[in-house]
Amino acid sequence: MGLIKVFPFLLCSWFLLASAERSTYIVHMDKSFMPKAFSSHHHWYSSTLQSIKSVGLTSLDAHNPSPKLVYTYDHAFHGFSAVLSTDELEALKKSTGFLSAYPDGVVTPDTTHTYKFLSLNTATGIWPASEYGKNVIIGVVDTGIWPESPSFKDDGMTEIPSRWKGICQAGEEFNSSLCNKKLIGARYFNQGVREANPGVTITLNSARDDSGHGTHVASTAAGNYVDGVSFFGYAPGTARGVAPRARLAAYKVLWSEGSYESDALAGIDQAVGDGVDILSISLSYRNTDLYDNPIAIAAFGATEKGILVSVSAGNRGPNFATLLEGIPWAVIVASGTVDRWFAGTLTLGNGLSITGWSLFPARATVRNLTLTYNKTLSACNSTELLSEAPDGGIIVCNQSDETTDFFFLWRYLSGSNVRAAIIISEDTGILRSATFPYPGVVITPKDAKDVINYASNSADPQASIEFQQTILGTEPRPAPAVSGSSSRGPGRSYPGILKPDIMAPGVLILAAYNPYNNVARIGNNIFLSSDYTLLSGTSMACPHISGIAALLKAAHPDWSPAAIRSAMMTTANPLDNTQKPIKDMGSDYEVATPLDMGAGQVDPNRALDPGLIYDATLLDYVNLVCAMNFTREQTQSIIRSSYNCSNSSSDLNYPSFIALYDVQEKRTTLTQKFRRTLTNVGNGATTYKLKVKQPKESTITVFPETMVFQKKYEKQSYSLTIRYRSYSQTAINHGSLTWVEENGKHTVRSPIVVTQRVYND
Amino acid sequence: MGLIKVFPFLLCSWFLLASAERSTYIVHMDKSFMPKAFSSHHHWYSSTLQSIKSVGLTSLDAHNPSPKLVYTYDHAFHGFSAVLSTDELEALKKSTGFLSAYPDGVVTPDTTHTYKFLSLNTATGIWPASEYGKNVIIGVVDTGIWPESPSFKDDGMTEIPSRWKGICQAGEEFNSSLCNKKLIGARYFNQGVREANPGVTITLNSARDDSGHGTHVASTAAGNYVDGVSFFGYAPGTARGVAPRARLAAYKVLWSEGSYESDALAGIDQAVGDGVDILSISLSYRNTDLYDNPIAIAAFGATEKGILVSVSAGNRGPNFATLLEGIPWAVIVASGTVDRWFAGTLTLGNGLSITGWSLFPARATVRNLTLTYNKTLSACNSTELLSEAPDGGIIVCNQSDETTDFFFLWRYLSGSNVRAAIIISEDTGILRSATFPYPGVVITPKDAKDVINYASNSADPQASIEFQQTILGTEPRPAPAVSGSSSRGPGRSYPGILKPDIMAPGVLILAAYNPYNNVARIGNNIFLSSDYTLLSGTSMACPHISGIAALLKAAHPDWSPAAIRSAMMTTANPLDNTQKPIKDMGSDYEVATPLDMGAGQVDPNRALDPGLIYDATLLDYVNLVCAMNFTREQTQSIIRSSYNCSNSSSDLNYPSFIALYDVQEKRTTLTQKFRRTLTNVGNGATTYKLKVKQPKESTITVFPETMVFQKKYEKQSYSLTIRYRSYSQTAINHGSLTWVEENGKHTVRSPIVVTQRVYND
Repeated sequence: MGLIKVFPFLLCSWFLLASAERSTYIVHMDKSFMPKAFSSHHHWYSSTLQSIKSVGLTSLDAHNPSPKLVYTYDHAFHGFSAVLSTDELEALKKSTGFLSAYPDGVVTPDTTHTYKFLSLNTATGIWPASEYGKNVIIGVVDTGIWPESPSFKDDGMTEIPSRWKGICQAGEEFNSSLCNKKLIGARYFNQGVREANPGVTITLNSARDDSGHGTHVASTAAGNYVDGVSFFGYAPGTARGVAPRARLAAYKVLWSEGSYESDALAGIDQAVGDGVDILSISLSYRNTDLYDNPIAIAAFGATEKGILVSVSAGNRGPNFATLLEGIPWAVIVASGTVDRWFAGTLTLGNGLSITGWSLFPARATVRNLTLTYNKTLSACNSTELLSEAPDGGIIVCNQSDETTDFFFLWRYLSGSNVRAAIIISEDTGILRSATFPYPGVVITPKDAKDVINYASNSADPQASIEFQQTILGTEPRPAPAVSGSSSRGPGRSYPGILKPDIMAPGVLILAAYNPYNNVARIGNNIFLSSDYTLLSGTSMACPHISGIAALLKAAHPDWSPAAIRSAMMTTANPLDNTQKPIKDMGSDYEVATPLDMGAGQVDPNRALDPGLIYDATLLDYVNLVCAMNFTREQTQSIIRSSYNCSNSSSDLNYPSFIALYDVQEKRTTLTQKFRRTLTNVGNGATTYKLKVKQPKESTITVFPETMVFQKKYEKQSYSLTIRYRSYSQTAINHGSLTWVEENGKHTVRSPIVVTQRVYND
Repeated sequence: MGLIKVFPFLLCSWFLLASAERSTYIVHMDKSFMPKAFSSHHHWYSSTLQSIKSVGLTSLDAHNPSPKLVYTYDHAFHGFSAVLSTDELEALKKSTGFLSAYPDGVVTPDTTHTYKFLSLNTATGIWPASEYGKNVIIGVVDTGIWPESPSFKDDGMTEIPSRWKGICQAGEEFNSSLCNKKLIGARYFNQGVREANPGVTITLNSARDDSGHGTHVASTAAGNYVDGVSFFGYAPGTARGVAPRARLAAYKVLWSEGSYESDALAGIDQAVGDGVDILSISLSYRNTDLYDNPIAIAAFGATEKGILVSVSAGNRGPNFATLLEGIPWAVIVASGTVDRWFAGTLTLGNGLSITGWSLFPARATVRNLTLTYNKTLSACNSTELLSEAPDGGIIVCNQSDETTDFFFLWRYLSGSNVRAAIIISEDTGILRSATFPYPGVVITPKDAKDVINYASNSADPQASIEFQQTILGTEPRPAPAVSGSSSRGPGRSYPGILKPDIMAPGVLILAAYNPYNNVARIGNNIFLSSDYTLLSGTSMACPHISGIAALLKAAHPDWSPAAIRSAMMTTANPLDNTQKPIKDMGSDYEVATPLDMGAGQVDPNRALDPGLIYDATLLDYVNLVCAMNFTREQTQSIIRSSYNCSNSSSDLNYPSFIALYDVQEKRTTLTQKFRRTLTNVGNGATTYKLKVKQPKESTITVFPETMVFQKKYEKQSYSLTIRYRSYSQTAINHGSLTWVEENGKHTVRSPIVVTQRVYND
């Protein structure tokens, strides 16, 4: 290529660079400054943008485009998003009512037996008490929804009140007639994607779910009853959401073409405007300060309107402080395992039977086939090697020293003439993956001894494997356990409130999906789809909490979001189904800490009747934000127009405690005092006594140690002081405070954590 | 190996040969010769065998074993089977009452929407009229039964009369508690296998079905209702047998270790002794004369007891005279297609949609993938070649000139990285096979034109395929059509009665199966099982007729087996669902003849009320056998002890006509006269008029041409004369005679065939 020809290319590049200088900003405005002349916020924001067009721009540049309004927001937060040049941004900053602006960021997306595991039942407790979440609306901000999924049929649903009509504006491939008494709303927001990717073609320009993620989340929270559902024969039964009579509104903000905060903000803002009761947000964000995090800001606005916001903790675990969203006013949800084991039952010719792990997605016939084990072949590390194994038999693949990654192991086996494999492995990652493309079972090195012994010493070793086995209960592993990938506290954006708040089922959850997308594979080149699939992640845990919050909202319509959160947290269970402390899959099944799982596994029936609650008003959150050492503009970005920081306090009336020491000081001692106020939501007079489990190296002092309530709704306060002397800088010291009702059934438990402060990178 | 060491081997071989000279014989006895001193037939037969032991044997040979009794038979036929040396056989022939003996032969097996296709419905017709076959017992002589199949649950079944208790003697792996009000009996017979294979280990020494064939047949005839059944997503719905309230008794006579006539005979004999109403026999035999065919003989005995015997025609088609069982007293069943198409829907990027054939046994995701067609790659004749096709795309495989057999095509495709195939083929064999291991659709060369055109001329050709499609109705091919493999008449063992008698659905019939056996494959090394499977063959057609016969027996308990057969035959439909003559898949969709399908497709609702019937008594069959030019012993083998041949006649009162000319004579003229008697089973006085469709080159004369019946059960006779002059020696000339009720609804049709006589090899 000659030199001359380079010029147009360079010019072109330069032009693109200049063009690229324009980008989308999310702008916070103080609406109290809006002149009365403007009929609406939209009018004001448009005018503001018009005004900056004429300011500071040279008339010479005719090609320079105008600032472009992307969205205006008015419910969860005040402001707009716009495509601006840096000059225009500077001009905007001088406009009346301007608070702050930050560039639009990229959002990335983070799965029914769980109702049984959560003890939900039709006879007693929260299901009948809440009429299964009747009339509560859950807004799901996600990848949209697959309206034809049987989970969104409206059989058994009551008529929609008229105020709810008209919120189904779902776009071309999604006729509004697909909305019904279950799926009452569906909207889509992609102006942010379009601005960030000029000329992009949106393939599904509607609220239709091209991924399946949003469909999964929505059906987990509030899917209707659907009989005869399974994942290729595994987890068979009747699917249903946690709140099967709650309604759903879907806000599509995640796109296969890219996902941006401006779109997510637009979705949440609209959901608040539409009047949802619960917001379910299974999304992941970049690591930002609270005042720069649109979800944190929008969640504040939602909370102001009495909407509980449930947000997934993220899947960045298992390391310390991998939780980015430390939003004090939202419920941050960790992910745990379920008491369900997907199995292949291996039966040796000598009659010995071993339950292995399998999710092979078909009913493979592996019956009395020759079993081969020898050190060379059992490496299973190439198709060539496997061609030496007897055709049509079963091979033992010893992966206990992880010689071959599962990805390659599946490939080698699928290319062979071997009929099935027994895979010896300690890799727990396979236990949360739905990928299992070859007929086999994964067994532990401990179970493998009998297999190797039989295969090595029998004259004609044979084995059978039965697939599509679903085993419920405490065996072979207690549940729940914290999922290895669940993000761990303290929260990056604000570590002063213990996060995550609570844990819910999030490993291999069965729920509805886009019926055309790949969810399983057989062999190397055959991909399968299903109406229901198994997914893992905090994205699946979050809608469980959203659904339970909906049940609580239906049962207690007067409870604030803080009261609902308190009820879930103080009744959460720190023990697994063997009545031992919940373990952490991310740390070799060590005991989990509140930084892994918050208060513990949610227990919806107990949450229905918590006895006492830690309530919080919007003012309490204002006081907390005031104590965050933000600038006026940063503070106002969260709190919006009017606020008063005269009572700033970081001691939020929260149902958990975290004290942070500074590792940069050696042998630190730390004293931190907390004050809490409890409201009696039990029936009438009662007395509670203190029970404390001290964190290591800590002393907890509580005053008073007895609380006497004369009547319902009476409030009583106590103080708690943590005194700590550190010996190990990296320790997570944890304990709990429990108020135990005398001669009563209620126990009100709060986790306590003492650990090191984290500094953002 | 040295020379010396060979000796013991040779000695051993010699010993085995000497031992092999003993074999199992089936022996017919004239029971009227049984001395009164014997308490039972068993006692007499045992004694007869003991007596020949002491005759003609040298005392020198101490190793010579005794004659060994295998079975005694007393219900369907009189006699026994025994392991005998040739000397012992000769001695036996001199015993009192001996009729004949022949060596035991090897038996081999042949192979639910059909109820709808047969117009069975709950509102009107034979189902409600027969109470769904209530209390009728169908005996299935086959590979046994899988008692745990949901098709054999007894929900909705009435209590068993006490005379039916105790016939469940099913062996070790089949506890008698598994019998119930649906499956009232199960027995097994393998003495024949054991004698023919000394030292053999019977793996499932019980009535349990190790194959699945018997389970399929039994559930087709009388399976209970089972919801949510499919073959890997194809043919979904509620499974049910033709007579869902009939009872079943299973007689296992086919073994994975070998199948012998002596065992089959024992099973049928016991079934007759147990008192079944219908016998369903989906087995194939060697080409034998009727007097040498134990099933023909046993069927005679069964008919004597008023039991209808339904036998599969065999799967030796499509050539002329491939039907071995020309048993005049049994119903011989041909196999036809069903109005059901298993499809993959192919959609091209240009919107064109084509319905192809597919039975890929999973929900493969093939969505908007790149489509490749070019002459080289589209040969698809090696995995190496296919590696040049784009990974993850769809390849068009042009097999219209049958370059690659499907067996190899599947192998090449499965080994490739191609995601799916569009296979252009005219091979109709694929349409009755359940093997479809790779995601693809088979389309015709005609449909392929659009695909090739689009793939060749589009810039970015793409296609999608949706699997697990089940299409009902007349498209793309009218149904029924005679299956290519269905055996064709005239019957080898006796061509004088037109066989087969009737056709029933036998192509890709969904019914219960051994849940552990392979029924499908994915790729090259993954085998799948299913509780229900699709099988094809006359074995599947036969139980449809057994079930319909059960319905007719329940509705008309007084009808003889001949009356039931006549009702089915004279009402059978010679037209397909497009109201055109039924075609033959075995002859490029030419019009089928009665040698392919007998009277036509069974029509159970019409059979309920046939108007007139051609009845036959045992004496009529005796007169027919007397006319077969057999020896006295041969005749008595069939008819048993007492018979009188003074009225021998080959002109059986049968609902069909066949005239055979001798091709060894040139330009033969043939005149054959038949006499028939019809019984009015309609209500009261009626008049029928003649309608004849002449076979080619033939003249049919009928007298009278009008029959007047004054009352129910009145009989009227007519004569029919066929005059034929042959021009083409190999022609199958066919027509029909129909008695049409005046001002009435009944039409009574009989097929007529004039063709060449076949000589056995």
